[in-house]
Amino acid sequence: MDANFEGRIKFLTEADKMKNILRQTLIADGSRRETDAEHSWHLSLMALTLFDYADNKESIDIDRVVRMTIVHDLVEIYAGDTFCYDEVLLQDKEQREKEAADKLFALLPREQGEEYRSLWEEFDKMQTPDAIYAAAIDRLQPLINNHLTNGHTWRMGNVTADKVYKRIEKIREASASLYEYACQIIEENIEKGNLKINA
Amino acid sequence: MDANFEGRIKFLTEADKMKNILRQTLIADGSRRETDAEHSWHLSLMALTLFDYADNKESIDIDRVVRMTIVHDLVEIYAGDTFCYDEVLLQDKEQREKEAADKLFALLPREQGEEYRSLWEEFDKMQTPDAIYAAAIDRLQPLINNHLTNGHTWRMGNVTADKVYKRIEKIREASASLYEYACQIIEENIEKGNLKINA
Repeated sequence: MDANFEGRIKFLTEADKMKNILRQTLIADGSRRETDAEHSWHLSLMALTLFDYADNKESIDIDRVVRMTIVHDLVEIYAGDTFCYDEVLLQDKEQREKEAADKLFALLPREQGEEYRSLWEEFDKMQTPDAIYAAAIDRLQPLINNHLTNGHTWRMGNVTADKVYKRIEKIREASASLYEYACQIIEENIEKGNLKINA
Repeated sequence: MDANFEGRIKFLTEADKMKNILRQTLIADGSRRETDAEHSWHLSLMALTLFDYADNKESIDIDRVVRMTIVHDLVEIYAGDTFCYDEVLLQDKEQREKEAADKLFALLPREQGEEYRSLWEEFDKMQTPDAIYAAAIDRLQPLINNHLTNGHTWRMGNVTADKVYKRIEKIREASASLYEYACQIIEENIEKGNLKINA
């Protein structure tokens, strides 16, 4: 086996660590926290399944979106998961993730490492139609799971509705229908007291 | 929201149960069993990453393969995971999975339900170039994780090497390089006593 093959196997073995990274979000039955690997798979399936609701469908390459969802959290193997409402940890997230990407993608042959890295960077910048739709799905999935688990991470983090509305702006950019659905979830969770209106 | 939308959200919520289905295989650090959702994600990443080693690359649509890996185990939500070396459970696997597919894919709009179902059926039959490559990756991933966890499921199931060689025939069909690597793993685990030679 050549060095390229060994590097790829090493990369895939490192990738197994996505099964040890716990997100704040619970799985839908509320029994435990979700792993990064599970979240990534759920996003792939969700991106495919809800694609008909993307406003900008003809500008989106759904297969590239699926690749993005597969690789979008890989840097967390070294950088860890950063809770999206934790303002302290968010400060150095970019630097931590850049260093993680340098380390992780270097295991792959150059061309493949660059492909995955640029998919991740594109996702992270959320500017292209593919990345906007992928990011919208990345916002919608935990919103639904929070809704199904009585607002778990919102209650835990004392999160206010305005922050969640800000967080779902990418859903608005990607899809009027999905945004409407996300807003319904937020309203319902304000009524239930799972989301606070004021800090 | 229309009935199609509600059905898709119901399907995606049901799909969350893939995070509760435990496989026999352990995650690479040996700390616990892998979930179906994690396995599916790992296959998607592995199929993309090792695609250069597919012998029949020009006949394979890698994006369809990735979709197959995403949906290939969904029927286990209702049918459960069937250990590939359990000959009793294997007897009614087909019937259990067919009933599960009837129930699960009916949640989706007809066209989408049929797309996912036919991807799963194609994967399961392992006849087309896409399905042969996807099945090869589905054989390789647990082989590697077994290797990394001191032959866990082989030792647990008293599995003999001839059964594992039979199981990796699909790897041979898909890729000479990946088959060579798989054989190396088997030989090494025979030497270590993790795989028995005779029953």
